[in-house]
Amino acid sequence: MLNTRMIVNILGFLLVIEGLFMFLSIPVTLIYGESDFTVFLISGGITILIGGISWFFTRDAQKNLYRREGYIIVTLGWLLFSLFGTLPFIISGSIPSFTNAFFETMSGFTTTGASILDDIESLSHGILFWRSITQWIGGMGMIVLSLAILPLLGIGGMQLFIAEVPGVTYDKLHPRIRGTAARLWLIYIIFTVSEIILLWIAGMDVFDAVCHSFTTMATGGYSTKQASIAYWDSPFIQYIIIVFMIVAGTNFTLSYFALHFRFDKVYNNEEFRYYIGFIFVFTLIIGLGLFMSLDLNPEEAFRISLFQVVSIITTTGFITSDYLSWISVLGVFIFFLMFFGGSAGSTGGGVKIMRVVLLIKNSALELKRLIHPNAVIPVRFNHQLLDSQITTNVLAFISFYLIIIVISMLGMSALGYDLDTSLGAVTTCIGNIGPGFGEVGPAFNFNHVPDIGKWFLSFLMMVGRLEIFTVLVLFSPNFWKK
Amino acid sequence: MLNTRMIVNILGFLLVIEGLFMFLSIPVTLIYGESDFTVFLISGGITILIGGISWFFTRDAQKNLYRREGYIIVTLGWLLFSLFGTLPFIISGSIPSFTNAFFETMSGFTTTGASILDDIESLSHGILFWRSITQWIGGMGMIVLSLAILPLLGIGGMQLFIAEVPGVTYDKLHPRIRGTAARLWLIYIIFTVSEIILLWIAGMDVFDAVCHSFTTMATGGYSTKQASIAYWDSPFIQYIIIVFMIVAGTNFTLSYFALHFRFDKVYNNEEFRYYIGFIFVFTLIIGLGLFMSLDLNPEEAFRISLFQVVSIITTTGFITSDYLSWISVLGVFIFFLMFFGGSAGSTGGGVKIMRVVLLIKNSALELKRLIHPNAVIPVRFNHQLLDSQITTNVLAFISFYLIIIVISMLGMSALGYDLDTSLGAVTTCIGNIGPGFGEVGPAFNFNHVPDIGKWFLSFLMMVGRLEIFTVLVLFSPNFWKK
Repeated sequence: MLNTRMIVNILGFLLVIEGLFMFLSIPVTLIYGESDFTVFLISGGITILIGGISWFFTRDAQKNLYRREGYIIVTLGWLLFSLFGTLPFIISGSIPSFTNAFFETMSGFTTTGASILDDIESLSHGILFWRSITQWIGGMGMIVLSLAILPLLGIGGMQLFIAEVPGVTYDKLHPRIRGTAARLWLIYIIFTVSEIILLWIAGMDVFDAVCHSFTTMATGGYSTKQASIAYWDSPFIQYIIIVFMIVAGTNFTLSYFALHFRFDKVYNNEEFRYYIGFIFVFTLIIGLGLFMSLDLNPEEAFRISLFQVVSIITTTGFITSDYLSWISVLGVFIFFLMFFGGSAGSTGGGVKIMRVVLLIKNSALELKRLIHPNAVIPVRFNHQLLDSQITTNVLAFISFYLIIIVISMLGMSALGYDLDTSLGAVTTCIGNIGPGFGEVGPAFNFNHVPDIGKWFLSFLMMVGRLEIFTVLVLFSPNFWKK
Repeated sequence: MLNTRMIVNILGFLLVIEGLFMFLSIPVTLIYGESDFTVFLISGGITILIGGISWFFTRDAQKNLYRREGYIIVTLGWLLFSLFGTLPFIISGSIPSFTNAFFETMSGFTTTGASILDDIESLSHGILFWRSITQWIGGMGMIVLSLAILPLLGIGGMQLFIAEVPGVTYDKLHPRIRGTAARLWLIYIIFTVSEIILLWIAGMDVFDAVCHSFTTMATGGYSTKQASIAYWDSPFIQYIIIVFMIVAGTNFTLSYFALHFRFDKVYNNEEFRYYIGFIFVFTLIIGLGLFMSLDLNPEEAFRISLFQVVSIITTTGFITSDYLSWISVLGVFIFFLMFFGGSAGSTGGGVKIMRVVLLIKNSALELKRLIHPNAVIPVRFNHQLLDSQITTNVLAFISFYLIIIVISMLGMSALGYDLDTSLGAVTTCIGNIGPGFGEVGPAFNFNHVPDIGKWFLSFLMMVGRLEIFTVLVLFSPNFWKK
């Protein structure tokens, strides 16, 4: 029997928290003398009321939760947050269409950053603040999810990280989540505050600094400006954001170690080394390409390249230069980068560096297996031999990821989009990146997508954000049996 | 120690056979009163001479062959056939550039069908005949390779077929290859002759009927006409070719059973059922799309759809209608189909239906594994439980296939091609299909690709044709150790 009461209890509790976050926009509206503070009062009130009632009437629920409840809470959690998160947009009239508001909010909570807004700067400060906060909350959710919940569910090789998270025992779900969350959220907050201060020193106004720090640390990519980070031509600001995107795309466990001066742990982490390695190699290639094809000085070429490579590989999606305006080969490299994603245990989306590395390693070993057909040749990762089960999990994850992209691409093209746009839209949504290709490239947005397409892409964002299986398992008849 | 002498011996023997095939063009030149019969006399002579000498001086070689020799013979075999196969094109002056001639010949022997020819109909009958024969030989090679050699090498799940091939014991390499080859080639020849007769009855002249039957049964796709099969507007001709493409894309073991009236074996074969199922579903979808978007009667829409679906899924590459002129969603479906490929054990290329089905099944089972984490849940295929090793082999194959496509796409885009063209060119070459997308779509050819690109694409065709690992294993340092 599913422990429905406990599920409702937890979801109710989470909604109360979402409502409280909505209230955070009220001081913003007051500071800027904008009239829409009632919007947030009402939205937050409704959310807290419904959440509170659900929580109150189920507070006597049995506390025991198993895997199945885990899947349901995670999926419904993201869904409900996105549903209630539309309230400020709808009540304020900033985004009158419910479909659009849902797309924008799901894109926020999944830290995707794809938008339907044609004129971001026309929105009030309160609304822009809420829009940034959805991403920051989404990032918080991901940290807990990827480091405390998914490893326990054994999804797509995430169990690799069970041994990695500091100071936590793995016997019970509840204390584990709490302990891990507290430790890692503290780091998340420290980084966010540091970025705010640095951006402010570099010349951003406080409001923009806060909003962009929220969306950087979440690898979300929502900006308060239509032109994204290209709005500021200060190299200093761009470098600060680059550094924090890299940090946000790093396993937060490693940040925990780094803050405790255990740099050996960071340096010896194989995923981190590949992550930095990929950034280095792609920055070099694309930087060289930009330098040779555009009229830029070396520092500009390097900075534009580094910024865009980091922004895409971490799945943030900030833009300082429209990669579709580059020579086509560089755009194809950016497309390629969309299949990497941040580190596991970071706020980044996509396939994740760890899985990409395992895929490459296992493929290379397959050649070795052919030469020595009788030898058992396991994959080595982070100085340990991997159980073949984990390799299979990872390969199954990547298979699913690609199958979904291909089938979704067919769906998008059925709406009349060409190959570039269809492929770009689904890749960027399932990878939680933001900008895509063709008609959903950096210079455009998703407003022109028909409603059915927006709902579908919203679903894809959620599927991608929750590591695919968490959502898809709910569609399996086996899940609901007995 | 590598048995080099035996490798040379076998390759020499194979070259003699290639030379004899070249002589087959001589009667054609005489019948049509063309002056280039000396071309084939010289080409065949050179090939037989070099092959004969190599064979003669190594005829005392030790007969024992192991896996390593197998990989080398197969890869070098295709390479040497393509090298010597350029002779008629170069000596006749039909294709003066060596790069172009090599591309065209490799495209022939790999049964790809991608061409650099701007004006096919300007070639002499002898040259056109040789061009078709390269594909027919390639098809013969594939039958032996996929049903007798690859299963033994354990490549990408091909060992699944060891138990399937009729009347063969698997203790020794030599008698096995000979027995299997004789049985299956007989079927190949029977089908080819039947198609020739039917096409001739349907109104094709004998020469075109022979050439097209050669390239149909090989799932090659070379035509004697610039417009490919669209040249003939006879529905009868198109339906005949459709039937034989389907047969060519079917495991030849099943044809063997069918010719022995063991239809139960055919009907119960899971790969065959999926193969027919995929053709049915895609024909329906695309046919409906064509009917709704173009001014066609239902039969025309069905026939165009069926022809193109079968042509692409079997990796033949014949064209009756330029799919890039269709509404874009249908073109995307065709692109999607390029990742299926024929059945294992057929002359078709691509990923192969069996592997696609295993990928889908294993992905679906991963959901079941998440729900029952302690159960061992193997993939079922053809009424048997698969060893997890085979599943891993198959997943590694598909991973490699996609990794190579992505990296090659980067290479093609570096030559200045856009995403569509780059992706289309590498997908069609590694899948041994023929027509691609963008600037290498059905209405164009590969002549405009820079030389370096042609060499690279030729390499890709060989890699794809030889089931990837056969070639790549030669680049592994482990292979050459000890």
